[in-house]
Amino acid sequence: MNRRHGSEPGTGEAKPEYLYGLHAVASVFKFRPDHVLDLQVKAGKYSPAVAAIVAEARGLGVAVTETSSAQLRRLTDDGVHQGVVVRVERRRDLDEKALEQRLADHERNFLLVLDGVDDPRNLGACLRVADGAGVDGVIMARSRGASVTPLVAKVASGAAESVPCYRVANLARTLRFIGEAGVQIIGAADESATSVYDIEVDSNTALVIGGEGAGLRQLTRKHCDLMAKIPMHGTVESLNLAVAAGIMLYQIQIKRT
Amino acid sequence: MNRRHGSEPGTGEAKPEYLYGLHAVASVFKFRPDHVLDLQVKAGKYSPAVAAIVAEARGLGVAVTETSSAQLRRLTDDGVHQGVVVRVERRRDLDEKALEQRLADHERNFLLVLDGVDDPRNLGACLRVADGAGVDGVIMARSRGASVTPLVAKVASGAAESVPCYRVANLARTLRFIGEAGVQIIGAADESATSVYDIEVDSNTALVIGGEGAGLRQLTRKHCDLMAKIPMHGTVESLNLAVAAGIMLYQIQIKRT
Repeated sequence: MNRRHGSEPGTGEAKPEYLYGLHAVASVFKFRPDHVLDLQVKAGKYSPAVAAIVAEARGLGVAVTETSSAQLRRLTDDGVHQGVVVRVERRRDLDEKALEQRLADHERNFLLVLDGVDDPRNLGACLRVADGAGVDGVIMARSRGASVTPLVAKVASGAAESVPCYRVANLARTLRFIGEAGVQIIGAADESATSVYDIEVDSNTALVIGGEGAGLRQLTRKHCDLMAKIPMHGTVESLNLAVAAGIMLYQIQIKRT
Repeated sequence: MNRRHGSEPGTGEAKPEYLYGLHAVASVFKFRPDHVLDLQVKAGKYSPAVAAIVAEARGLGVAVTETSSAQLRRLTDDGVHQGVVVRVERRRDLDEKALEQRLADHERNFLLVLDGVDDPRNLGACLRVADGAGVDGVIMARSRGASVTPLVAKVASGAAESVPCYRVANLARTLRFIGEAGVQIIGAADESATSVYDIEVDSNTALVIGGEGAGLRQLTRKHCDLMAKIPMHGTVESLNLAVAAGIMLYQIQIKRT
């Protein structure tokens, strides 16, 4: 039983929320089963994936209720629930202290810093590809950008549970802190002269990505050791935020090893 | 004036449609200005990007009407119109004959084959990153997967105009044809033992990506020279379709050069 989040210091109050979707729900049972309050499943014949989740819930002594698709849609604001909705205590985000601890405990870190990503689908897809690329933690400002809502968790396909999320009061201060702790800071910037394929990457590194419209703020750039872009070979000026994050994260991952 | 699409043989009837969003609209003016019927813009002060589109339209003698945001929303089914909606003749998709011509004319081709991508946002993001990675053409089945609708064009951010789209009657037959024409065919498959970082790539190559649920069909796999996966370093099983397409396309692009 992995309690990556429950066992570290955190912030924020714990109000229940409804998470939905096969991967998001399975991931809650995997990473923080003690936070699960109850499970609602669509009445009828279970798919193997739903049956596995129901069995997991029963094994943990979690109440399972069969209900209608309409009720599941109501609980999830018309989300793509895939027949499973779990009521859970809201996850506590990790804070500066937890990040400090992470850096004290590990010499090699692969971090993703999101500087004001507003679209929940982009945030969810960023978490998902961060997990795929082996990122150790995602850092976001506490008061800017989207929060990890049930929609974000659904799009993240389990990664909202598996990837530690640090929410910090001041992103510039945190960047200065991780830089002083020895982490190389790479900023993603379309207008950089340097391609991500040409940079040297440390094993202890962080990629910083700006929000959908504005990109990296000046205050954020100031703390980057270098800026890198994805080369554009056609006519469009930029890529979808999560696609760009994926390309850069995977390239950095390859260069780290 | 680039008439990449208008000047090649195509299929399908040409009914007008409303395209919207700054990049999508600017791209229509760039790639097929003769298809533009009229332009509607949100009344009020123009942003520099809107002003540039209006100037372009006026220079071409295209009628420009100022209207309300509500009317623009109505025309675009509540699309993110960004203040500009253009009525255009529907683009004619390219067909098998055009693809044959492309292969006869070019020894080096970089193609993306989509085997039943259903979500318009995924299709739009695939077109956008295909343009970014320098793809020469996207091949799709005529009767499977999403069409290039105005929403797809908006998400594609101009790439629905810049990247030639070939729609073919039978994808398996077309894959056999391009294989026989000397194109290396790489299938994307999560369960492949081979990482995309370890494959050898020809300069004449096609990447085949399956739909959201099912992945590559058996009939499609049969025509692939090799299968490759994106290595997954965390706990999620797969990536968002467009993110995966982007990572693979950029890696193949790097290996081609």
